[in-house]
Amino acid sequence: MAVSSSLFTSSLQGSMVAPKTLKCYREYMCSPSNLSCRQSGYSKSVYLTHLRLLPSGKLLKREQTDRVSPKDRIQCCAVQVENAPSFSVGKKFQLDDVIEAQQFDRDILGAIFKVAREVEKIEKNSPGSQILKGYLMATLFYEPSTRTRLSFESAMKRLGGEVLTTENAREFSSAAKGETLEDTIRTIEGYSDIIVMRHFESGAAKRAAVTAGIPIINAGDGPGQHPTQALLDVYTIEREVGKLDGIKVGLVGDLANGRTVRSLAYLLAKYQDVKIYFVSPDVVKMKDDIKDYLTSKGVEWEESTDLMEVASKCDVVYQTRIQKERFGERIDQYEEARGKYIVDQNVLDVMQKHAVVMHPLPRLDEITVDVDGDPRAAYFRQAKNGLYIRMALLKLLLVGW
Amino acid sequence: MAVSSSLFTSSLQGSMVAPKTLKCYREYMCSPSNLSCRQSGYSKSVYLTHLRLLPSGKLLKREQTDRVSPKDRIQCCAVQVENAPSFSVGKKFQLDDVIEAQQFDRDILGAIFKVAREVEKIEKNSPGSQILKGYLMATLFYEPSTRTRLSFESAMKRLGGEVLTTENAREFSSAAKGETLEDTIRTIEGYSDIIVMRHFESGAAKRAAVTAGIPIINAGDGPGQHPTQALLDVYTIEREVGKLDGIKVGLVGDLANGRTVRSLAYLLAKYQDVKIYFVSPDVVKMKDDIKDYLTSKGVEWEESTDLMEVASKCDVVYQTRIQKERFGERIDQYEEARGKYIVDQNVLDVMQKHAVVMHPLPRLDEITVDVDGDPRAAYFRQAKNGLYIRMALLKLLLVGW
Amino acid sequence: MAVSSSLFTSSLQGSMVAPKTLKCYREYMCSPSNLSCRQSGYSKSVYLTHLRLLPSGKLLKREQTDRVSPKDRIQCCAVQVENAPSFSVGKKFQLDDVIEAQQFDRDILGAIFKVAREVEKIEKNSPGSQILKGYLMATLFYEPSTRTRLSFESAMKRLGGEVLTTENAREFSSAAKGETLEDTIRTIEGYSDIIVMRHFESGAAKRAAVTAGIPIINAGDGPGQHPTQALLDVYTIEREVGKLDGIKVGLVGDLANGRTVRSLAYLLAKYQDVKIYFVSPDVVKMKDDIKDYLTSKGVEWEESTDLMEVASKCDVVYQTRIQKERFGERIDQYEEARGKYIVDQNVLDVMQKHAVVMHPLPRLDEITVDVDGDPRAAYFRQAKNGLYIRMALLKLLLVGW
Repeated sequence: MAVSSSLFTSSLQGSMVAPKTLKCYREYMCSPSNLSCRQSGYSKSVYLTHLRLLPSGKLLKREQTDRVSPKDRIQCCAVQVENAPSFSVGKKFQLDDVIEAQQFDRDILGAIFKVAREVEKIEKNSPGSQILKGYLMATLFYEPSTRTRLSFESAMKRLGGEVLTTENAREFSSAAKGETLEDTIRTIEGYSDIIVMRHFESGAAKRAAVTAGIPIINAGDGPGQHPTQALLDVYTIEREVGKLDGIKVGLVGDLANGRTVRSLAYLLAKYQDVKIYFVSPDVVKMKDDIKDYLTSKGVEWEESTDLMEVASKCDVVYQTRIQKERFGERIDQYEEARGKYIVDQNVLDVMQKHAVVMHPLPRLDEITVDVDGDPRAAYFRQAKNGLYIRMALLKLLLVGW
Repeated sequence: MAVSSSLFTSSLQGSMVAPKTLKCYREYMCSPSNLSCRQSGYSKSVYLTHLRLLPSGKLLKREQTDRVSPKDRIQCCAVQVENAPSFSVGKKFQLDDVIEAQQFDRDILGAIFKVAREVEKIEKNSPGSQILKGYLMATLFYEPSTRTRLSFESAMKRLGGEVLTTENAREFSSAAKGETLEDTIRTIEGYSDIIVMRHFESGAAKRAAVTAGIPIINAGDGPGQHPTQALLDVYTIEREVGKLDGIKVGLVGDLANGRTVRSLAYLLAKYQDVKIYFVSPDVVKMKDDIKDYLTSKGVEWEESTDLMEVASKCDVVYQTRIQKERFGERIDQYEEARGKYIVDQNVLDVMQKHAVVMHPLPRLDEITVDVDGDPRAAYFRQAKNGLYIRMALLKLLLVGW
Repeated sequence: MAVSSSLFTSSLQGSMVAPKTLKCYREYMCSPSNLSCRQSGYSKSVYLTHLRLLPSGKLLKREQTDRVSPKDRIQCCAVQVENAPSFSVGKKFQLDDVIEAQQFDRDILGAIFKVAREVEKIEKNSPGSQILKGYLMATLFYEPSTRTRLSFESAMKRLGGEVLTTENAREFSSAAKGETLEDTIRTIEGYSDIIVMRHFESGAAKRAAVTAGIPIINAGDGPGQHPTQALLDVYTIEREVGKLDGIKVGLVGDLANGRTVRSLAYLLAKYQDVKIYFVSPDVVKMKDDIKDYLTSKGVEWEESTDLMEVASKCDVVYQTRIQKERFGERIDQYEEARGKYIVDQNVLDVMQKHAVVMHPLPRLDEITVDVDGDPRAAYFRQAKNGLYIRMALLKLLLVGW
C-alpha cells in the first residue's frame, strides 16, 4: 500500500503513515491537564463517542477532576463508551478530525454532501444560523492563505460561531523561541473549541490531531493535504453534473505538482465507471503513482494531448494553473507549458451543454475571461461550495450529525 | 468636464471615467454563478430595486436556479423592477456602493447625516444595536490602514454585524499568482454580504463595484478617493458649526497632495455662500483644477499667507499634515513647509468662540498638544464621527433607509 | 523605595515612577471630546466611581454635551462621586486599569481569583456567557504576541463580547507618520470599550491609561510589566497547591532576565511564611533588588545549585526558559546555562505528590516532554488559567464586581 501513502505528496520522501492507520479510534491517554488524547492503532469494531462532543459542562467537569491517575481515566472513558448507542451505520460517520482526503469513503462523502446542501439553505437570522453559537474556532495559519482562511471564518460565522484569527502562527514556533507544534496546540486548545490549521510541513495536521483534545481541520499542510478542497471539488461535480458514477473528467494543466488534481483523482476512484483524461504539458504530467492506483481500482484513464477532443467528451473539464514557482530557472519551460492548454470560447464550443469547467482558483490566463459569462463556467460556484462544505464539516465536528 | 474628473486625483494621468458615468444604474448582466452585475451607462429615470437588498432567502433561491439563459435573467430582473414602488424622492437615495465623494449630492448627504445622528444614539444591547445581525462584512485591504479598518469594523460590530478581516489582500493578487481584482471580488462576495476595500490603485474600487453583486465601500484607493473621510468631514462641520450654508473654511497645510482637502472643497461647493481660504506653503499650494471648479460653481475662495487673519474669520480651521513622503530628496523644502503654519494657542486666541479646529489625523506637530484641551479642538470628535458615518453607510447599504 | 520601582524591570534605567504614584485615583480633567482623564497624585481616601463604568447610555449622553467648560465637568464628576455608595472594602477593589502587578494587594488578588473561578464555570450559551454582550475590546499590539492576544480575545468572546484586532499597531506611530501613542489611544477609544495593549516600551501602558477614558489592560510593555501573567501564575499556585501562605517555591532557570519570575517573587511576598529558592546558572542569577525586597518583607529565600534537593522540598517548581537573545554573542555561555537545570523524570521522582511543575511557556527543552504526562505537570493548566484570569479582569473592568 506504499503507493497510496504517497498519493497526496508529490515526493515519496516524508510520506505519511500507512493507510491502515488512517482511520483510527482515539485511545484515551488523558493527562489531567487537558484530556489530550493520542490516536493510535486501528480497529474497525471500536468506536468511541468522542468525549469532546459531550455538552461542554460535562467536559469542563472532567477537566476539573485533576489528579486522577491515567488508569482511572481510561476506565472512566470506557464507561462513556458503554453508555453510547450501539454501533450502527450512523456511527461510522463519527468525525473527529479532518486530516486527509483518504479518511473519507463514498458513504461518508455522500453524508457530508447532504449536510452541505442543508446548510446552504440556512437563511439569515433563522434558527439554523445559530447552531454553532457559543463555539470558538481558532484559525492557526503558519503560512497565510487569505482565501482559505476567509472561507472557513465565513463558514463559522454563518453558523453563529466565533473566530480567533492568526496568520502569523510561525511566531509560536520561531527558531528563536523553538516551541514545538504540540505545545502550541496544547495552548490553543485551551482557548478554542476547534482548530483550523494551515502549516508548511506535510504531516503537521496529523501531528496536531494526535495531540489535541479538540477537533483539528487540516486547511493545507505543505505539499501534503488540503482535504476540504478535495471535498468541495467532488461536491461541486455532484451539484453541477448531478452524479458521480459514470462521469468523464478531464484533468488539465499542471498534473505533476497540483495536489488538487491528485486528490481529486484519488477520490473519483471511489465511484463507479469513472473515466479520467489527463491533458498536460510533458514537463508536468501526472505521475505514475496515481495512474497505478487508478488502474488497481479499475478506473479507466488515458493521457491525451488534444484538449478539444477531451473537452467534447467530458462532463467536467478541470483546469489548473501552471505553477511558475515549480520551474525554478527554467522559465522557457514554464512559458511553453503555460500557453499550451487554454480553456477559451473554442473549448466551450465543443463542450456538451451539461458539462462544466472547474478550476481551484486563483487562475491566471489558463481560462480566458470571456468564458466567465457562460453558464458552464462553474469555478466561482465551486469556490462558493467551499463555504458550504466547510459549514458542514464545522457543524459535524462540533455538534455532530 | 475634464476638470471634475481629476478633482480627486492629484495628477491628470490615470484620471477616472467622465462624470456622466459616475452615477449609474446597474444593468443586470447576471451570470448564473453569482448574479454579478455590470455598471454602465447613466439614466436618471431608471432606478432598480437592488436585487441584493432583497431578503437573503430570495437571493439564495435565485443563485440556485442555474442554467437560466442570460436573457431570461434580464427579464426576471425587469419583473423585479415592476414590483418596486413607484419612483419617489426616497428612491433617489438608493445606495448601491460608496465609491467616490462625487456620487453624493446635497440631499443625499443630508439624508445620510440624519441616519448618522440616529445610529449615534443607539445604546448597548438595545434593539438598534442588532440591526445588522447576521450580516458579514469583509474588509479587503490591499494595504494596511489600521485606523480606517478598525473604524469600519467597530461600526459593523456596533450594529450587530460580523466581520471577516484581511490586511494582506495583496497575497490574492501577488505577482507570483497573478489573480485579477475581479476574480478576487467574485470569490470574496461568496463569503460576505458587503466588502470594504482599500487598494493602492486609483479606480480599483469602481472596478470592484462593477464586478460585485454585493455592495462595495471604497476605504481609499491610492491617490484617488476616500469618500467616507470626505463625508465625515462635512458631517463634523455640520455637527460642530451647526450649518453648512454660509460657512467660512480655512484649509491649511498640504493642499497639493492631500486628497482630504480636495474632496472637502469639492463637497463644500454643494452648499450656499461658502467661502474657502487656502493657507499653504508655496510648494504645496492648492492646484488650479479645484480653484477653477470652485469658481465655476460660484464659490468664493482666496489664497492667504496669514494664518492668524484667516483663523480669526473662519468657522473651521482645517489643518493637514505636510506629507514628507511627497518631497522625495528635497528634505529642505519639507522642513521649510512643515514649520510654516502651526495651529497653536496663539491661533486659538484669535479664533472665534464657536469656531473649530479639524484635522484628518494622524498629526505630527502641525497642531500643538496644548490645543487638545480646548473645546474647539474637534479632531478627536471628528475621528469618532467617522464611526457614525460608517455605521450609517453600512446600515443604508445592507438594510436600506 | 527605589528598589521596588525597579522590581519589574531588569535594569534600573528607565525605571518607572515611584511607588506612591502607583495607586492613584483619576482626576477628571475631561476634555469635551472624550472625557479623557488624567491619573495623578495619590490618595487612599478618595475613590471615584469610574464614569466609564456607568451604563453606556449615560456616558453617550455626556459625550454629546459638548462645550461644557472643563470646570463644569469636574463639578459634574464630583456629583457622581456623591451619588456613589459610601466607601467600603468593596470599593477598594474598584479597578480602572490593569497596568502593573504592584497595583494589586493580597485582598484584591483574592477577590479577582474568586471571580476567575466563577467565570471558569460558565457554560456555553448560559446567561453567564453573555455578560459582556455589546462590549467591544480592541487589541492594540505594537508587537505581535499571538499567544497573549488569542488568550485575551478568547476571554472576551467567551463572555459574549466582541473584538477589534490589530497586530500591526506600529503602523499608527510609524516613523514616517509619527503619531504619538496618546493620539492613537484617543482615536481607538472612540471605537471600543476597552483596550488591551502590548508595546515595546516600558511604561507605555501607563501613558495610555493616563490618556484613555476607557480601561487599559497592559498585555506586556517591553521589559517592564506583564501583569496578567503574574496574576495567572499566583492563581495557578492557589488552584494547584490549595494555598499561598506557607508555600515553598523554587524559581529555576533565567532569573536575571525573566520578568515573570521577578513579578512572581514580588507577589509572593504578599503572603505569609513563603520560602523561595533560586536555582539558576551563575550568569543569570536573581538580582539583588528582588533579594533585598524579599528580605525587607521578611520573606525567607536562599540560592541553591542543587535542583534535586530544592525540588524535593518545594510545593512549586517554577521553571523558565533561558533566553538566548540575552546572551548576544556569548553562545558558549548560553549553551552552558541552558543545559544546567532540566526538569525531567528524575526531578519528578523526588518531588512530593502534591507538588507541581509550572512554566510560563513557550518551553524549549528545559522541561522534557516525558514530564507532560505526569499529573504534576501544571503548565498547560497554567496557560488555561490565563484565560480565566483575563475573563475575570475583563468582567471587572467593564461591568464591575
